[in-house]
Amino acid sequence: MSKMLTLSETVAWLKENDDFLILTHRRPDGDTLGSAGALAQGLREVGKSAYVFYNPETTPRYAGFVEDYIAPDDYVTKNIIAVDTASADLLPKNAAVYKNSISLCIDHHKSNMLYAELLFLDADRATCGEIIFEILMLISGSISSATAECLYVALSTDTGCFSFGNTTANTLYVASLLVEAGAPNKELNKLLFRTKTNARVSLEGMLVCGIEYSFDGKVAIASITLDMLKASDADEDDMDDIAAIPGSIEGVYVGITIRELSSAHDCKVSVRTRAPYDAQVICSHFGGGGHSQAAGFVAEKTIDEIKMELMEVLGEM
Amino acid sequence: MSKMLTLSETVAWLKENDDFLILTHRRPDGDTLGSAGALAQGLREVGKSAYVFYNPETTPRYAGFVEDYIAPDDYVTKNIIAVDTASADLLPKNAAVYKNSISLCIDHHKSNMLYAELLFLDADRATCGEIIFEILMLISGSISSATAECLYVALSTDTGCFSFGNTTANTLYVASLLVEAGAPNKELNKLLFRTKTNARVSLEGMLVCGIEYSFDGKVAIASITLDMLKASDADEDDMDDIAAIPGSIEGVYVGITIRELSSAHDCKVSVRTRAPYDAQVICSHFGGGGHSQAAGFVAEKTIDEIKMELMEVLGEM
Repeated sequence: MSKMLTLSETVAWLKENDDFLILTHRRPDGDTLGSAGALAQGLREVGKSAYVFYNPETTPRYAGFVEDYIAPDDYVTKNIIAVDTASADLLPKNAAVYKNSISLCIDHHKSNMLYAELLFLDADRATCGEIIFEILMLISGSISSATAECLYVALSTDTGCFSFGNTTANTLYVASLLVEAGAPNKELNKLLFRTKTNARVSLEGMLVCGIEYSFDGKVAIASITLDMLKASDADEDDMDDIAAIPGSIEGVYVGITIRELSSAHDCKVSVRTRAPYDAQVICSHFGGGGHSQAAGFVAEKTIDEIKMELMEVLGEM
Repeated sequence: MSKMLTLSETVAWLKENDDFLILTHRRPDGDTLGSAGALAQGLREVGKSAYVFYNPETTPRYAGFVEDYIAPDDYVTKNIIAVDTASADLLPKNAAVYKNSISLCIDHHKSNMLYAELLFLDADRATCGEIIFEILMLISGSISSATAECLYVALSTDTGCFSFGNTTANTLYVASLLVEAGAPNKELNKLLFRTKTNARVSLEGMLVCGIEYSFDGKVAIASITLDMLKASDADEDDMDDIAAIPGSIEGVYVGITIRELSSAHDCKVSVRTRAPYDAQVICSHFGGGGHSQAAGFVAEKTIDEIKMELMEVLGEM
């Protein structure tokens, strides 16, 4: 059980302590890595020692934003901070040693499991980056261009460049201050949102050509087979937000993406819906969960088996 | 030759006059229509009569945002305002009658042709909507949710949901105030940026499958034939930003889209480049123009003829 801190208590703790090690979550995204990089940079700028713990799952897309902050192997500290990480189980394997000794967690997930000794949680914030921004502004009163760049990565990637439903007035406001502070938004947007790899373009082409419509076009199902992944040479970065495609087609209320994982009998299913359809209800039939508009499940079945079962479930709705 | 106004002179002119008719430009986009709708709404809220002149080229995507403001056929006034329109030649055909009697132009295009009697021009603004925001704030001190919705359409569509290189800190700041004022950004983003028509998805699939790479993958050429348009049932709205696709592929420095217009011998070519390649230089060989990163030309030649000529020009660069 964590002790809940206020924003100013969090700032006071950071000011009183030193030699920080910052942890990020598994399958690290722009928000956890950008928040970690920004916190390390911001703390260094006020004379502290701060490093980001190496996350072996970091993809090339984001590696460059944290490389200057990665802790050396012999770095020892008792001041461990986890950012954007709702549960100790979400830490990467190499961070398991820290699991029970995390001093402070800074998070925006309502579902936070209260695993850290101290917790600053603001579930009203769309991104963890917005919280780091507030903390750093209170610590030093300004934001450097290096910090602004990391935070812009956090805010923009977690909101699909401010297009997702989670984007708030505060997200846009903080983003404007980051650009003002020197975040190179033009270059970052080009890299993060307006560049597709050959592999992604190829995979999207195959996915789109194979979409099957049913229930008068209200349901669209896309499949991603291991063969498609091999043929397109797509990696995990190339899969980013790809499950949104079927649900983004006009007239589609239920967009489903079925992806083969380790074999043809091991699939991950992502369901995106618009009202009155409820993704969570659909996925609960398969033991999965999520939110009303986006949910998922895994099944040890083939794509065709899953499609047939989905048709039955959808037919009864 | 226009008389240049300051912001406060523009506000004073709007306060002193009444019965406004607001003109938008040909092939109207979200910025011209959103700016016109917001200006009409904002002026009405301070007791003025204000209408938007019907633009016959308005597409279904944007029609709903201005329908409440369209002027009746018998509306007569001498206070004509053009928004986001750099030249009188860019007015739709049915507005030709007003060409020489435009009282005020509000614009952000550096290339403004000074055709209106009075002009407020702020070329530092990414969107005309940001200027309308400033004007309305000075007129009434606040923004209603109806005005905020129109302005959000203007800002977001002209910047690709804040992802294009023209997005400034001011764009993001004004957007945050619009969301604060009640602009339903979640619903608008879903409609404007996260929904694709069947036709668009189908056309994109065909376009992507047909991309030809040359010069070690540095050049990507996509073609859009009349047959493809017919097969996909795509309309003008479906073409929005489609020319960005070839240039958005990793490793591509020159992205070219060739589109058949009225026949196979009548093509429009869009060129998008990254440094050191210059789109304007490439297009100048064909009598076209534009900016260093985005330019275009039209040619009475077939797609294959244009491709061959482009190869020659690019081979010499």
